[in-house]
Amino acid sequence: MTALTAGERAARLDATDPLAHLRDRFLASPGVVAYLDGNSLGRPLAVTAERLAAFTRDGWGGRLILGWDEGWMEAPERLGDELGRIALGAERGQVVIGDSTSVLLYKAIRAAVAASGSRTEILYAAGDFPTDRFLLQGIAAELGLTLVPIASPHDGGVTAEQVADAVGPRTAAVVLSHVAYRSAHITDLLEATAAAHAGGAMTVWDLSHSVGAMPLRLDAWGADLAVGCSYKYLNGGPGAPAFLYARRELHERLRQPIQGWMGAAEPFAMGETYAPDPGIRRFLSGTPPILAMQPIADMLTLLDEAGLDAVRAKSELLTAYAIERFDAELAPLGARLASPRDAALRGSHVTIDHPAAADLVPVLQRQGVIPDFRRPDGLRIGLSPLSTSFTELELGLDAVRDGLAAAVR
Amino acid sequence: MTALTAGERAARLDATDPLAHLRDRFLASPGVVAYLDGNSLGRPLAVTAERLAAFTRDGWGGRLILGWDEGWMEAPERLGDELGRIALGAERGQVVIGDSTSVLLYKAIRAAVAASGSRTEILYAAGDFPTDRFLLQGIAAELGLTLVPIASPHDGGVTAEQVADAVGPRTAAVVLSHVAYRSAHITDLLEATAAAHAGGAMTVWDLSHSVGAMPLRLDAWGADLAVGCSYKYLNGGPGAPAFLYARRELHERLRQPIQGWMGAAEPFAMGETYAPDPGIRRFLSGTPPILAMQPIADMLTLLDEAGLDAVRAKSELLTAYAIERFDAELAPLGARLASPRDAALRGSHVTIDHPAAADLVPVLQRQGVIPDFRRPDGLRIGLSPLSTSFTELELGLDAVRDGLAAAVR
Repeated sequence: MTALTAGERAARLDATDPLAHLRDRFLASPGVVAYLDGNSLGRPLAVTAERLAAFTRDGWGGRLILGWDEGWMEAPERLGDELGRIALGAERGQVVIGDSTSVLLYKAIRAAVAASGSRTEILYAAGDFPTDRFLLQGIAAELGLTLVPIASPHDGGVTAEQVADAVGPRTAAVVLSHVAYRSAHITDLLEATAAAHAGGAMTVWDLSHSVGAMPLRLDAWGADLAVGCSYKYLNGGPGAPAFLYARRELHERLRQPIQGWMGAAEPFAMGETYAPDPGIRRFLSGTPPILAMQPIADMLTLLDEAGLDAVRAKSELLTAYAIERFDAELAPLGARLASPRDAALRGSHVTIDHPAAADLVPVLQRQGVIPDFRRPDGLRIGLSPLSTSFTELELGLDAVRDGLAAAVR
Repeated sequence: MTALTAGERAARLDATDPLAHLRDRFLASPGVVAYLDGNSLGRPLAVTAERLAAFTRDGWGGRLILGWDEGWMEAPERLGDELGRIALGAERGQVVIGDSTSVLLYKAIRAAVAASGSRTEILYAAGDFPTDRFLLQGIAAELGLTLVPIASPHDGGVTAEQVADAVGPRTAAVVLSHVAYRSAHITDLLEATAAAHAGGAMTVWDLSHSVGAMPLRLDAWGADLAVGCSYKYLNGGPGAPAFLYARRELHERLRQPIQGWMGAAEPFAMGETYAPDPGIRRFLSGTPPILAMQPIADMLTLLDEAGLDAVRAKSELLTAYAIERFDAELAPLGARLASPRDAALRGSHVTIDHPAAADLVPVLQRQGVIPDFRRPDGLRIGLSPLSTSFTELELGLDAVRDGLAAAVR
């Protein structure tokens, strides 16, 4: 029996991929051989180009201001409910779309801290994404809080055990990413939340690198607050609006500081005093970004058709294929695997550290192979399940191998 | 000599309108007889529908993540500079696009207050738009400040003299709208800013109801901070991103609290500690809304072609025509004019108070005549200069007259 070549394995995986036919829904990118950065910016669906033009003509242009009474006003919750049902495991009335991930994280963290009373510390992962850490530094400075980092060796995220060890009576909030942006390490959301709750603290989760690539069960896992990005695996387009989840029982206790009219109980009463909406809309501030929300709706339809369990199954096969080829061809060239080998602990990207990574990325880009670079020496290979084929990944890894081989020659 | 009828006057004004030909650049709205709410949501340009589809195909889909290195990263400042040059009277490097008006107002007010040292009071207009007042209530509560309202009878905005009388050594910031959302009263930005400065306070201006409808001279007027909306006279679409201006000399002293990565000096350094960008980018937080910015670029091109002086000249003629017809036909039906008679004190809308307004607006809408309603009894007639004809206004005012006549019969 002859072992299959990498190319034969990729072709066979594509042939048996039950989601393969959905790749044609995405717009073509001329000159791109392998797009391995869908976890940074997801590709557009063909229907999205049409939808944006049609919305401009028929919605914005056709209905003008009447659109607000014909569905736009409720859009942040309506689309949030869809996102909750399809991707977050959240019952209705707990998710809104709006703002940016950074702004919603600010609101969520401020709300969690305010609800904690006189507690004075925020726990976070030392290796978390900069915007999360930077926001926390600002919040700690303005409120006089202490930031307590949880070590995350090799940007590997943190474990629930670490949270249990660190949380205590001074803990005002625990702020963590579900999937680490660099290594793709998954923190057990259920266990880590339980550990925080045992210490009397609320959790704020950044779901940017997990939403849309794996099924989430926020209600079942007992999540308190969660925020995520929609331009990665939700294919919302560059700078698309973010989303926020807040568990229903907490709404009454949660107050965010940016008291714009759209978060008020009665925005058009033009009243004297701000009173927050009784539900999830209290997390809104300004006018909802209706135009910018349009692409997310298309991707949610596709995710609903595919099913998040099937998406996750393909994601695991894609990352496993990348690691198999790493072992066979990249490790011998001096590369180190920064991502977990255990699929259950791994998100939908694989990061390979190599001293030549910084120089290699632009070379690859010129060949139409587009991974991401993450300091100091990480080649991050993002595998957006619905838009990536195994053959595409194969071609990309061929180029990575050839590039590293040339670099160490 | 026979006096002209209202219809004849409207036809003559259209015939001599040097901007009349630009109306064809906007998309048609089937069934709409008179759109008198362009100050709430501006109409889309035809090129915008095409641009959004093309951007999705060729920009987002064609360049994918490479787009960030090919101009997207600088887009908030580049488009901000264009806005500054064409509409704000601002030199380069002082304007960014992003977030919502509410979020940017929050950042601007927080930054102004922080820069004021130990001052404890914020002056604002008692009749200002709810989001401005609500935001101030939240900020005052979180920082332990006192809000000091300046009376604005009949929602008429405030005067520079009132600011001069109210400002003092405890004033941390003066927060005002340039054009009052209800009456269209213009507050003299230069004089009011000078009055604030004489008391040692910075100003934060809300330009939502003036930008794009009249030339602004923020640099020359000595403005400190200003924020505005882009979905009114900048025709950015429902929920389009807002903009923020900050005078260059102040940048170093201004710190906003939402420390996201895009406001950092080196976002991709992924460093340990947040250091703000030395310039205007320090007001950014999350990933810039590239897709949502596209329509603004089209409208700026048109405004540049038309020239803001010409836009303002047409705006004055439109509002004067409305007031002339108010005097002749609406005042006798019991309507009261809520807007200034002096064109120099009047923005680009005219508000008419009448007890029947709330009931009349939906009736008018069914006839394809779309003004806005503002509590308690205001019929707000918004006159977006580039997309509104005098004949359209005439038809709309005919319907208002007939509706009020039926109501009081």
